[in-house]
Amino acid sequence: MNKAYAKLCEYIEKNISFREALTLFEWDNETLAPEASAENTSKAIGVISGEYFKTLINDEVKELLTVLSGEEEGKSLDFNQKAIVKNMKKSYEQMESIPPQEYRAYSELTAKAPGIWARAKKNKSFDEFAPTLEEIINYQKKFASYRKKGDRKIYDILLDDFEEGFSMEKLDIFFDKIKASLVPLLKQVTDKKDMIDKSYNYQTFDKEKQLAFGKFISSYVGFDYSKGVLAESAHPFTTNLHNKDVRITTHIYPNNLESSIFSVIHESGHAIYEMGIDDAITLTPVGGGSSMGIHESQSRFFENMLGRSEAFWLPVYPKLVEYFPEQLSDIPLEQFIAGINKSEPGLIRTEADELSYSLHIIIRYEIEKMIFEENVSVKDLPAIWNRKYKEYLGIEPENDAEGILQDIHWAGGSFGYFPSYALGSAISAQIYSCMAKMLPVEEHLKQGNLAPIVAFLKEHIHKYGATKNTSELLTGMMKEDLNADYYVSYLTDKYTKLYNL
Amino acid sequence: MNKAYAKLCEYIEKNISFREALTLFEWDNETLAPEASAENTSKAIGVISGEYFKTLINDEVKELLTVLSGEEEGKSLDFNQKAIVKNMKKSYEQMESIPPQEYRAYSELTAKAPGIWARAKKNKSFDEFAPTLEEIINYQKKFASYRKKGDRKIYDILLDDFEEGFSMEKLDIFFDKIKASLVPLLKQVTDKKDMIDKSYNYQTFDKEKQLAFGKFISSYVGFDYSKGVLAESAHPFTTNLHNKDVRITTHIYPNNLESSIFSVIHESGHAIYEMGIDDAITLTPVGGGSSMGIHESQSRFFENMLGRSEAFWLPVYPKLVEYFPEQLSDIPLEQFIAGINKSEPGLIRTEADELSYSLHIIIRYEIEKMIFEENVSVKDLPAIWNRKYKEYLGIEPENDAEGILQDIHWAGGSFGYFPSYALGSAISAQIYSCMAKMLPVEEHLKQGNLAPIVAFLKEHIHKYGATKNTSELLTGMMKEDLNADYYVSYLTDKYTKLYNL
Repeated sequence: MNKAYAKLCEYIEKNISFREALTLFEWDNETLAPEASAENTSKAIGVISGEYFKTLINDEVKELLTVLSGEEEGKSLDFNQKAIVKNMKKSYEQMESIPPQEYRAYSELTAKAPGIWARAKKNKSFDEFAPTLEEIINYQKKFASYRKKGDRKIYDILLDDFEEGFSMEKLDIFFDKIKASLVPLLKQVTDKKDMIDKSYNYQTFDKEKQLAFGKFISSYVGFDYSKGVLAESAHPFTTNLHNKDVRITTHIYPNNLESSIFSVIHESGHAIYEMGIDDAITLTPVGGGSSMGIHESQSRFFENMLGRSEAFWLPVYPKLVEYFPEQLSDIPLEQFIAGINKSEPGLIRTEADELSYSLHIIIRYEIEKMIFEENVSVKDLPAIWNRKYKEYLGIEPENDAEGILQDIHWAGGSFGYFPSYALGSAISAQIYSCMAKMLPVEEHLKQGNLAPIVAFLKEHIHKYGATKNTSELLTGMMKEDLNADYYVSYLTDKYTKLYNL
Repeated sequence: MNKAYAKLCEYIEKNISFREALTLFEWDNETLAPEASAENTSKAIGVISGEYFKTLINDEVKELLTVLSGEEEGKSLDFNQKAIVKNMKKSYEQMESIPPQEYRAYSELTAKAPGIWARAKKNKSFDEFAPTLEEIINYQKKFASYRKKGDRKIYDILLDDFEEGFSMEKLDIFFDKIKASLVPLLKQVTDKKDMIDKSYNYQTFDKEKQLAFGKFISSYVGFDYSKGVLAESAHPFTTNLHNKDVRITTHIYPNNLESSIFSVIHESGHAIYEMGIDDAITLTPVGGGSSMGIHESQSRFFENMLGRSEAFWLPVYPKLVEYFPEQLSDIPLEQFIAGINKSEPGLIRTEADELSYSLHIIIRYEIEKMIFEENVSVKDLPAIWNRKYKEYLGIEPENDAEGILQDIHWAGGSFGYFPSYALGSAISAQIYSCMAKMLPVEEHLKQGNLAPIVAFLKEHIHKYGATKNTSELLTGMMKEDLNADYYVSYLTDKYTKLYNL
């Protein structure tokens, strides 16, 4: 092995070890840790975070990365090693340009901001959060300006952090296409919204049985319990120590059957991705998913492309009825399929159906653009938000809690993150279209045989981890970069049929 | 703050943080981690263990400890700080005297030895484990000889590691006293062993309900769920990140009601100890329990002194009957109390009743003495073991699995550990006797008011953590060091009454 690379590996080994410890602390905190433990435990987390940081950012690593990025040394590196060096160099440059003192102040700000946001949301008062949000935005602008090269736009820098190679130019085309088709389609669907009776979903469903069905359905779609865990938490999420320890959570509502089912399938999609990453890279900086958009494409592929299709439920619905005979015996499969696909424009992104979901994202994307490129004032944001909801979804929030304050992302400093959700949806439709040309997907689903589908995803996406970015993965798989047409025609076909438009 | 001490605190902070991470990994591994995760995760654990070690053993820490142990600097330290320096210096000297290469070889040996032991136990073949055991013993002898000062005996050095200030001289007196009284007492009891009908205990008991009762009873005795967690694992244990995050486990057997009840009360005793340690020291090297013996005294105090008494069950037994009406409605309290105290000499230490328990320990103590002070050959151990069981308990193992191979301790290199179990039992009886002079213990139990009992223990033992050793805690509380008389007379009284001797 290259000598400089071998030295870098020592840092990587420590870095990954600390990352695993931090991941485990976080998992434990979300699922199990006792209430009073936080104050003491957070000290340990702080110390280990500091050690984690030091394994990435120090003079020797800087030198090693410079040497290894050189043409001469680069020749001796294999594909994975090159990707690791590139990935670490990018992180290094991101961090290095920010003065440590400013970064610390920013970290403290974004550590306390979620608490301020939560209180403001509880009081339905954007004013209480506005000064903090303004501070965060100012830091984001300043940090991006430190990293700015040439006349690159601030928001483009932020977008690139979540999706390498993506910019407003690319996303404007993407979102304009979606908006042009989906806004009118949603209006047509909304006019017929009472067509589908979904009352069956809001009966009472035993929590233990819901959890047991969650274990069954996650396993059914390919979540491997020898490498994974399912637990309960306030909000569903996926996390992993490495490719053989991947954990998902769900939140069970006694009066909403589909909520936990689809969150489990969604998180299983994230988890199956992580489980499929190659052993050779799992304990390295490229050992996680490629990008937010790709990650979300996998979760939505399982949740929507597979999980909301009739072929998927054909072999599985009878099983669900077995779990809940009292509530479901009289509900035919057809009604269940209509129910899980029913569209009703709402105010809350996380509760949105497949059709309206991207419109929630477009609103956030347009507002973030205004914040960073038009310097719109923070105090004007609620009015802008509400106006856009009226325009795109035909409804308006009654207060800030169900409007501008609904998401935690900005409180954590995540700007440029939201577009990934819509990209994920679009990519999932694009992958499905590609897969369907190469595999009898529907037949497999009808036969309850999901293994070839998982194998296809592993072969074309999962195994690469973060050694390839979104465009590289897509073109590698189907000789075509991101194209919103697949997504638009998938939704148009589906909803035209469902609502007899 | 003393400047050198402030510097030491930086190492302590890191050390405690890594220790918490390692504790969490271990907890997770025992309770939740997926089966296939171990290989990858163990690499992280290895790296963090190395970092943990480095925070304790390095040139700067050595110098700081030397300076701070000096008379001049010592004056500027308070009670806790002095205890911390003393504790770290002791650990340092233990580690420092062993050549790193030998220590690494020994660590590898004791990492793989439990696997070899488990296979040997499964095959009921001591021969398969004997060579490994011999290697471990040789390392232990060698390491102790490095640390030897003057004509100190090897086994005394090992005993002192678990119980500061304890030696064969002290323990011989202790165990001789116990043996002289309990061996004949046990024989008397064994003759009347069919007097008590305990068949109620071996009916079928729903696991969920057992777990729910476990949560109730742990909370009842003082386990604070805002600072703690109860989970299931193969073998019950207690662990903690700090005094506000203390975790216990239980193992539930569907056909043995009392097993989980008493293991939960036992582990709650350990946990309440850890929860009671002072905030000022919880995140330091003296932030855990004082010694193995003291820790075990707390668990056994709750399990035996409180948990097997009639006064304890008077208010609680009706509650247990509510959980299991079908199985217990016809069993009067009197029969239940007799059942949970029934004595039947058996071959397995972990299943032993209160009366015979210490005899299992005496056998191990005597054999360990022979190993280290008489150089008895490893191959002769099974025969020695069996002979002693015949002599003290009147029964003999049919194979090595239920004989010499039953405990994992020696495979982990823990020699000198077993005596702590008997010390714990004896100390718990001594503490009860002291407490009963100062508190109306029985009255409190009958009224279901355990708070004053927990408060007493916290005030005299828990809060001090490891700033005081066993003798200091005992003499501090009752002006008397360890005295086996309390234990002997407690058991004699109890079993004389129970069996009408």
